[in-house]
Amino acid sequence: MKTEKPPVRKLDVCLTPELLHLYDLEDRIVVVLDVLRATSTMTVALAYGAEKIIPVATVEECHRYKKLGFPVAAEYLGKTIDGFEYGNSPFEFMSEKIKGKTLIIKTTNGTEAIQKSKASSMVIIGSFLNMKAIVKFLRSEKNDVLLFCAGWKGKFNLEDTVCAGAITSELLYDYIIENDSTLAAYHLYNLAKNDMKEFLKNSSHFRRLGNLDIEKDVEFCLKKNIYNVIPVLERDYLIDINRIPEIESLLKG
Amino acid sequence: MKTEKPPVRKLDVCLTPELLHLYDLEDRIVVVLDVLRATSTMTVALAYGAEKIIPVATVEECHRYKKLGFPVAAEYLGKTIDGFEYGNSPFEFMSEKIKGKTLIIKTTNGTEAIQKSKASSMVIIGSFLNMKAIVKFLRSEKNDVLLFCAGWKGKFNLEDTVCAGAITSELLYDYIIENDSTLAAYHLYNLAKNDMKEFLKNSSHFRRLGNLDIEKDVEFCLKKNIYNVIPVLERDYLIDINRIPEIESLLKG
Repeated sequence: MKTEKPPVRKLDVCLTPELLHLYDLEDRIVVVLDVLRATSTMTVALAYGAEKIIPVATVEECHRYKKLGFPVAAEYLGKTIDGFEYGNSPFEFMSEKIKGKTLIIKTTNGTEAIQKSKASSMVIIGSFLNMKAIVKFLRSEKNDVLLFCAGWKGKFNLEDTVCAGAITSELLYDYIIENDSTLAAYHLYNLAKNDMKEFLKNSSHFRRLGNLDIEKDVEFCLKKNIYNVIPVLERDYLIDINRIPEIESLLKG
Repeated sequence: MKTEKPPVRKLDVCLTPELLHLYDLEDRIVVVLDVLRATSTMTVALAYGAEKIIPVATVEECHRYKKLGFPVAAEYLGKTIDGFEYGNSPFEFMSEKIKGKTLIIKTTNGTEAIQKSKASSMVIIGSFLNMKAIVKFLRSEKNDVLLFCAGWKGKFNLEDTVCAGAITSELLYDYIIENDSTLAAYHLYNLAKNDMKEFLKNSSHFRRLGNLDIEKDVEFCLKKNIYNVIPVLERDYLIDINRIPEIESLLKG
């Protein structure tokens, strides 16, 4: 008789970058979540054919890359910074213009979270938009996983936690789940799932974004499973993991 | 026509000691929550007549106080350390023996949280057991409030967060609530409230304590509104806030 083996991989949720030092990153796959809007926007950009994304933290870096001729997305407090081509709205990247390009994206919480994750065995970028692809990929891997919420200025935020809970809910039988932050994320997702917009309406980021009249962006970022891309960090840039064989064969010529 | 004034005081929840530096403690009342079992046990001890509690962090301090003749509660990994009178079970302190005594209690997460809170205007100790008294007291105060979860080794835990949510649910109309950790705590409490033991059954601390056969302690610590004491930090010790006038008049006496 064949019996199913119990899972041996662990799944954890880190609620903010200020807690990351409490987790051992070695041999872990870290999934960075900054769903409103950095990691959602990055997912869209790769899905629309951008070849690479270089996430940066400062406006100075943006200026440097702009001088070198790169298309730059630079946002501050939800608005495009004067002099740059793109802001942080996913809709700006649904365009032929970015195809094959290396895109520079400045984000505050997202870039910090990506930088801090580099000690892990692999950093990937998650969002509701590519959740199913992420889940499928993680099921095929052997390493432990850390779902890493970028939060807001070091503090906990609801939308990233709910996204971590959504991913957790798909992996309940594939991973050992034994810490309270993962349970909390899972419970909060279950509360939110039937009407995420309504659930997040009172959240702090939602209110901040509400003031900027970008409800359309928020609604879009909460949609599930639109894209199959999985942005993965290679040195300092993100590429779609599905394109790695193609790129490698191009390099070999 | 008389209209009700909107609240101007803020209520925040800090989910772990590792996030406390993100909060401005000045002019805040900090309520430390370490419900399984440190702050519950402290509440019981003061309710049963202990005059003061000195929370300490190390076994060395416990030995020093023991030599000086103080009754000492020293627990490690849920068990009483050899050579000391008390452990960390609330039932040990339901005794005439502690009446009028200064009690030394060693806790790991609780003591750390208390030490870190000292920059605030007032540190009080909360638990489910004295929740109603805490709520009534906070309603009468003008300062902002931080419900501070002691967590587990710096990480988020469910039981302290659910207690913060329970206190929040009583203060929704008295305080401005505008951060996501407070909303999350409130939501988690609402999920938990009808059967807290069942809700916490899968939590990490519950499982750790379950191995120690102290289910009776856990069940007791989840009971609401048993005692009216409010432990408040005065220099290095905790006393019941209700007894301050009595003690002051004795001192003047």
